[in-house]
Parts: sequence; structure tokens; C-alpha cells
Amino acid sequence: MRLLITGGAGFVGARLARTLLKKGELNGQAITELAIADLFPPPADLLKDPRVRAHTGTMLAQTELFASGFDGVFHLASAVSGECELDFDLGLRSNLDSTRALLEGLRRAGNAPRLVFASSVAVFGPDAGNPMPERVADLTLPSPQTSYGTHKLMSEYLIADFTRKGFIDGRSARLMTVTVRPGKPNGAASSFFSGIIREPLAGVETVCPVDATVSHPVSSPGNTVRGLITVFEASREAMGGRLALNLPGLTVRVGDMLQALEDVAGPAVRQRVRFERDERVAGIVAGWASGATAERAHALGLRPNASFKAIIEEYIADCQQLPGYPADALRGLS
Amino acid sequence: MRLLITGGAGFVGARLARTLLKKGELNGQAITELAIADLFPPPADLLKDPRVRAHTGTMLAQTELFASGFDGVFHLASAVSGECELDFDLGLRSNLDSTRALLEGLRRAGNAPRLVFASSVAVFGPDAGNPMPERVADLTLPSPQTSYGTHKLMSEYLIADFTRKGFIDGRSARLMTVTVRPGKPNGAASSFFSGIIREPLAGVETVCPVDATVSHPVSSPGNTVRGLITVFEASREAMGGRLALNLPGLTVRVGDMLQALEDVAGPAVRQRVRFERDERVAGIVAGWASGATAERAHALGLRPNASFKAIIEEYIADCQQLPGYPADALRGLS
Repeated sequence: MRLLITGGAGFVGARLARTLLKKGELNGQAITELAIADLFPPPADLLKDPRVRAHTGTMLAQTELFASGFDGVFHLASAVSGECELDFDLGLRSNLDSTRALLEGLRRAGNAPRLVFASSVAVFGPDAGNPMPERVADLTLPSPQTSYGTHKLMSEYLIADFTRKGFIDGRSARLMTVTVRPGKPNGAASSFFSGIIREPLAGVETVCPVDATVSHPVSSPGNTVRGLITVFEASREAMGGRLALNLPGLTVRVGDMLQALEDVAGPAVRQRVRFERDERVAGIVAGWASGATAERAHALGLRPNASFKAIIEEYIADCQQLPGYPADALRGLS
Repeated sequence: MRLLITGGAGFVGARLARTLLKKGELNGQAITELAIADLFPPPADLLKDPRVRAHTGTMLAQTELFASGFDGVFHLASAVSGECELDFDLGLRSNLDSTRALLEGLRRAGNAPRLVFASSVAVFGPDAGNPMPERVADLTLPSPQTSYGTHKLMSEYLIADFTRKGFIDGRSARLMTVTVRPGKPNGAASSFFSGIIREPLAGVETVCPVDATVSHPVSSPGNTVRGLITVFEASREAMGGRLALNLPGLTVRVGDMLQALEDVAGPAVRQRVRFERDERVAGIVAGWASGATAERAHALGLRPNASFKAIIEEYIADCQQLPGYPADALRGLS
């Protein structure tokens, strides 16, 4: 089967690509080609695999590629929340127009490929007229408070309509915040959720821009990739009749994240995090869900990470064995 | 103030224009200019008013107009549900791209004009994973089952985000099915809700394409226009913190509509309606709400029509006094 991953050179996308290439098949069909579309080329280990084809450039320039007859698509390409708040036009172009271009291309191919869209917990938000529950559920009425969340939600509905018309076989999996991400901070307002663990483990001082009491649903990279693949392989019936679902998230407070860091790595590592409120980031985060449930994903067999300690341990193990993790990632561990 | 009505040459738009011109002001500001943008020119009585400027052509060709600095906008232009189901691209272009073009133009003007978007009860729909309540409410999770409803919902969220960013001061009023419309059947799947009253009153035999037990929320043209104006004049606070609301609808069954017709016009008139199921129309209508509530609109002082008999009586009175109603509209009344 011919697979496409948009945003496949990014962290989650590349990890998904590696997992799929190792698995070798999807839904019982051998993966013969894995196209990776992104603004930049995929990591070297992926380029070396003969099944991988890299397509570098903007989504809007790839319509011929999209129309070339894929059997399956993971649509992960996206500008991140912080960027979209700073540049409204970028958000519209990168997250709404690009999704539309992808869907139009797939429709043109005419083979109704299965598609998993990486939506986000950011579709939810507080609204004076629609208070957000403590834990957002599959059927919570979304009130996005960012352009990022707005475009993700609009894309969910567009995908549902393309699916209803039989142009694709789409579903939307709302990712919880993925942590711990390796590498450098990015423009996402959620970037610190990784930074407060990653930097101290690398021996680097870092700042937490929100209060210790802030609670949020998170998921490890491995668990997130497992979620995307499971949602892809689920039958339409198993999806429970609705095409958008929450992936499982572990609901955890920032203070408890840091306690878990201390439990795993000791007090000296934890001391490298200091609190310094950033109003812009704190404001965006205040508009996010403080927790989440994932009833439909649960029915598909998916589960949140067991604990935040387990998430940190997974990160440490990943640093020791996976590509894409810098050599000095654990320099701060004594 | 400079006002714009998109779709202002259509039935609801022209009625809104007449009501506003007669009222002379909106939110206490004199209406000095009323721009009417539509595919076709507005009716002659509107063209005669010195405040009216007609802009004929597609929405996508009117971006300069949209950016010219309006103080208020009613966005009613839309392809109807039946058309959008038959022509997917038309729906995307006329209902999604056109709304986007309008919002981009208003943003470019830089004065954050107030905007009322005519959304629709068609944002709601049945979904195996999200059963529709017997009466859909302001906070019911939408699951549109048509492209028309999908694009209306996507536009609601886009308008909310443009408003959050301060580019416009927008709100979305979900219209219930407007009945009784004068004139000829149109491409809307809901067209028969007017036809089964209008045609017999004009002495014309007609067909009802759905069962007598079908229930649906409806509103008279006059009540619908009142709703749009009230939502425009409401302060942001009075909107109750959320920018999309249901306009009030009278929940009524087709059989009761015909009984009201008999009560008002006699059995001979009612006999002009025969039932002949149209699977395409019945299928679309089965995906619509069987009833609605409108808590927020109620808080603004809006009410549904008192009865379907009152709706028919309003239609008969309108035929006798308003422009846009054909001379032979009541030929079937003995």
C-alpha cells in the first residue's frame, strides 16, 4: 500500500514513519511506499529506507502528489498554536487551506483513501456561554479560543463532510499535548510542557511560564503514535459512529510533573526549573482543557500513559535508543 | 451608518432591507447607505430608495466592496441545501469561500464592523455517535449531515475567531426554516415547507415529499427578520458570552401545518396537497432537527410565532400588502 504522512519530517511524524516502517504493514497490507511531505526533508534514517519518498515544500504546492492515488494518509502537517496566534494569515494558510488542498487532491484521486487527521485538544476552550467541564470528553461542545484550535475544528468538520460524500474515509484523532519532545523549544505555547522535563535532564536551566497548579492532559510520543495507528486501523463501525475522538491523555498538574521528575532524576535536576510567569503563554494555556476523557479511544483499546513518571522513563529510554534524540540529552542525569 | 446585506436581493434579504429602510436606523444610528450584494439586482422598490446601492455579482468578486468600510453587515448570501448536495464545489465556493472573502475584506477595512451571519438549524443532525435531542438547543453539539450545514458551522467558528481577534464584531444567528415563502419552489430541500401552504392558497395542486408525522422548527419571514435585527442590536454581553445562537422556531408537524391550512382556508384548499414521498428530499429532511429551543434568543426578547395558524395568517396579510408577493398568490381562497 502507498501511504502518505504530511508533516512526516516533524517529531511526531518521523516517529510515526519509523514505527510504520518497522511494522511493515497497516491493516494487514504491506507498506510498499511511504511518502513524507513536509517543509523540510525527513531525518537521514528515514531517507535511507527504500520505501520512503520525500516531498519537500508547502502543502499548497503538493496537490499533484495528493491526487496521485494513496491508500492511506496521516495528516499531521500544521503550524503550531503560538505561531498562529502571532500570524493569523499563516494559520489560515497552513492549517485550513492546506487541509482543504489535501482533501481536494485525495478526492480527485477517486479511491476514497483512509485518512487520519491529527486534530487537537485545543478545539476545546472556556467560553462564558459554554463552561468547559473539568475533563473534556468526545462529545463536549468545542469552543476553541485560538486560531489553531479553530482551524483544527473546522478541518474536523470538513473531513467529516468529505467522508459523508464518500470522497475519503476520514477520521480525526484529537492529540493531547505530546510530552516529552526532544530537541529545542518550538513556537507552540505548549512547548514548556516538554521543556520543563527535557532541559533539566540535559543539564540546562529552564523557566516554567505557568503556575504549578495548571493541569493538562498529556501523552507520551510513543503512546500518541500508537493512538494514531489504532485510529487508522479501526473500522468505521468501531469508531462508534462519529469521526472525531479524543486520544487518551494523562491528566496531570505541572507541580506533579516536577515531582515525578524529582522522583526519577533527583532534586538537583528538578532545581533547574524556576517559575517565571509569561502572560502570553499563560493566557493561551488558560484557554485549554485542564483534563480529558477518551471514551471512544478507550473502546478501541487505547489507554493513557500509566503515570507521568512512566512518561519520563519512556523519554529517558528513548534518548538511549532512538534516532532524533541528541547525544547530550541526558547530560544532566548524575 | 453604512450597512451591507449580502444576499440582499433574495427573499429574506430583501425583506430585511425593506424593514431596515423603513426603520431608518439601527442601534440608534441613521442608515445613510444600504449596500445590497447579490447575484442578481434587488427588487425595483428597493432600487428606488436613494440609500440603496446595488452590487451585482458573485461574493468572490466583491472583495473591494467588502473592504470599503461598512459599519454593519448582515451576511445572508448562500447557496441552498439541495444545491450544495448536488454540487459539492458550488457549496464550498458559495458558502465557505464567500464567507471567508467577506471576512477578509471586512478585516482589511480595519474598523471591526458588527456582523450578523445567517447560520442555520441545519448545523444539527443525527449521528450514530451523538444522538440528536428531540429539540436542539444553543449548546447542542452540532453534527451536520449536509455540506450546507457543514459550511454554515465552519463559518460560525471562523466568525468567532475573527471576532476574538478583534477584526469584526460578529455573531451567528441560526435561522429556523422560513415559511411561508412567496414565489416559486427553490432548490432548498426545505422548499416544500412553504410549497404545501403557498401552492394550495394560489389554487395550485402540490406534492408533499415527506410524511405527515415529520416535525420541524419553523419561523415566519417577519419573525425571522425581527430575529436578525435583534441579534444585530444586542450588546456582546447580552449575547450571553457565546456568538452563535438559535433563533426561535415553532416546532410543528407537517400534518398540523395542513390542519392549520384547513382551519384558515377550508378543506378544499387543503385537498390540493397530496403526499408523494421523494426519497432524496425525505433523506435530507430526516437529517434535520425535529424541534428546537432558543434560550439565548429568548433572553434577547425573541419568541417563536404563536401558532402555525398565525404563520399562515401572516402570509395572507403579507400577500395583500407587501411588495414581492404575486398578484395571484391567494387565487385559491374562495
